[in-house]
Amino acid sequence: MELGIIGLGRMGQIVAERLIDAGHDVVAFDVDEAAVETMAAAGATPAESIAEVAETLDPKKRIWLMVPAGDPVDAALEELRPYLDAADVIVDGGNSHFEASVRRGEATDAAYLDCGTSGGPAGAELGFSLMVGGPEWAYEAVVPAFDAVATGPKGHDRMGPSGSGHYVKMVHNGIEYALMQAYGEGFELLHEGRYDLDLAAVARTWTNGAVIRSWLLELCEEAFREEGPELGSVADHVAGGSTGTWTIQESLEQEVPLPLIYQALAERFASRTTGRKSGRFSRRLANRLRYGFGRHEIQRR
Amino acid sequence: MELGIIGLGRMGQIVAERLIDAGHDVVAFDVDEAAVETMAAAGATPAESIAEVAETLDPKKRIWLMVPAGDPVDAALEELRPYLDAADVIVDGGNSHFEASVRRGEATDAAYLDCGTSGGPAGAELGFSLMVGGPEWAYEAVVPAFDAVATGPKGHDRMGPSGSGHYVKMVHNGIEYALMQAYGEGFELLHEGRYDLDLAAVARTWTNGAVIRSWLLELCEEAFREEGPELGSVADHVAGGSTGTWTIQESLEQEVPLPLIYQALAERFASRTTGRKSGRFSRRLANRLRYGFGRHEIQRR
Repeated sequence: MELGIIGLGRMGQIVAERLIDAGHDVVAFDVDEAAVETMAAAGATPAESIAEVAETLDPKKRIWLMVPAGDPVDAALEELRPYLDAADVIVDGGNSHFEASVRRGEATDAAYLDCGTSGGPAGAELGFSLMVGGPEWAYEAVVPAFDAVATGPKGHDRMGPSGSGHYVKMVHNGIEYALMQAYGEGFELLHEGRYDLDLAAVARTWTNGAVIRSWLLELCEEAFREEGPELGSVADHVAGGSTGTWTIQESLEQEVPLPLIYQALAERFASRTTGRKSGRFSRRLANRLRYGFGRHEIQRR
Repeated sequence: MELGIIGLGRMGQIVAERLIDAGHDVVAFDVDEAAVETMAAAGATPAESIAEVAETLDPKKRIWLMVPAGDPVDAALEELRPYLDAADVIVDGGNSHFEASVRRGEATDAAYLDCGTSGGPAGAELGFSLMVGGPEWAYEAVVPAFDAVATGPKGHDRMGPSGSGHYVKMVHNGIEYALMQAYGEGFELLHEGRYDLDLAAVARTWTNGAVIRSWLLELCEEAFREEGPELGSVADHVAGGSTGTWTIQESLEQEVPLPLIYQALAERFASRTTGRKSGRFSRRLANRLRYGFGRHEIQRR
């Protein structure tokens, strides 16, 4: 099928490449001309503006936004507005707040799919997990593209109506914070505890058959292997936190206690008030794991 | 190689079967005669007593204990005592406290390996993750057996001296409690939250490519598929807790804060004081997950 991709950052490039590799026709735009040229070399039709993306596409337009959450999404939608009608489908693949997605879905003439995207840059090889909210017909219309961008047909699903995709992604990230903190605490106790242990060997042994095996645990092993058993210069400073904050805000709204997710978020906040030189091993590992799965910049000390 | 296996419960049977399948010679004993007969039919040499296990084995005896942690380990060691010397190796594959393993290692004439075992009954197919503490020569002497019982050579390693295997397994379990609680909290918010979601579909979508993918998440999907999206009759009652308690005790000794692991343990305790009829979704999922990975009895309401 034919799709427009707006936004060719780290994640947008992967979306475009996976679509092209699967034989889809991609019209690509980014404010960064070099990114557009790279994608044209990979087989996309380059566009010089958002308007050109819309004008190049079929009458039934399918447009995937992969721009940073917040104002860039509204700005792209504003530029697309004159070209959109009820037969068109917009996919927002970023980390938007679910209420912003509901509002945008109501404000646009096109069908609006909010698409939570998980897997980070490693998804270039494996494909992503895609959590999609919005009208069923619009989801069905884009399934061939979701099959290509996700790990396969099992790696995407329609969660429910407008907003539900970003809602499920928000909770995914809340869980993610707690998982990172849980591994961090365990490795911190092993690091500070009474045996002199090879933490990379511990992580590798657990990864092979233990109940707690996971992708994040594989990334713990990678962190110890690449940074050393003391995590080298990795600082006690964990950046990020918006989706975790939203998860706790929603838990307050729903009156659902989330003590671990709250505490994991609180540990991030606390990491930003302590000195970067020393600090907690658990939070230094969380700092490094954010690089492992998302290629987020490592805060060094 | 030739090994004696003492204890043919759920886990001991799997250890024996994996050794036999790999071509090792197993001398098997359990207080339950039927379990011994089953294992004899599978190719083991049956023994009628612990003494007979010791008498049947080579002069250099390798004996794997897979009996419940605590008194049964001491009772088995007491019966073995007259037969053991410094060329022999004992493996304790149960969930013993690491300090008990150090004490037992000092008290026995044989080399003593404390072997944390993770993977639960699913390890019958995949093999276990084995975390081994004790003398290096003894570990090396048993490597062919560890290769067979673990997922393979990467699924076992010597953590360090006596006690370190059970120490690492203790921390593994502390992490496990927190991971279960983290997933439980996320699914509870999705369950109580503002969208009507298919939680099995959410878990499956996450399992395929998301950052939080893991074996426990696969077991969440299995739980929703087998028990239904409301978890059916699964009660808000999470049993178990000894290894998590030891983890927190050690964190107090080491003065390492483990807020998530502590809170996950506290949630278990709290689950036992509330009514089983209603209760928290997160803890009902934890109750079901303990069946998923360990075939521990599901508390029903």
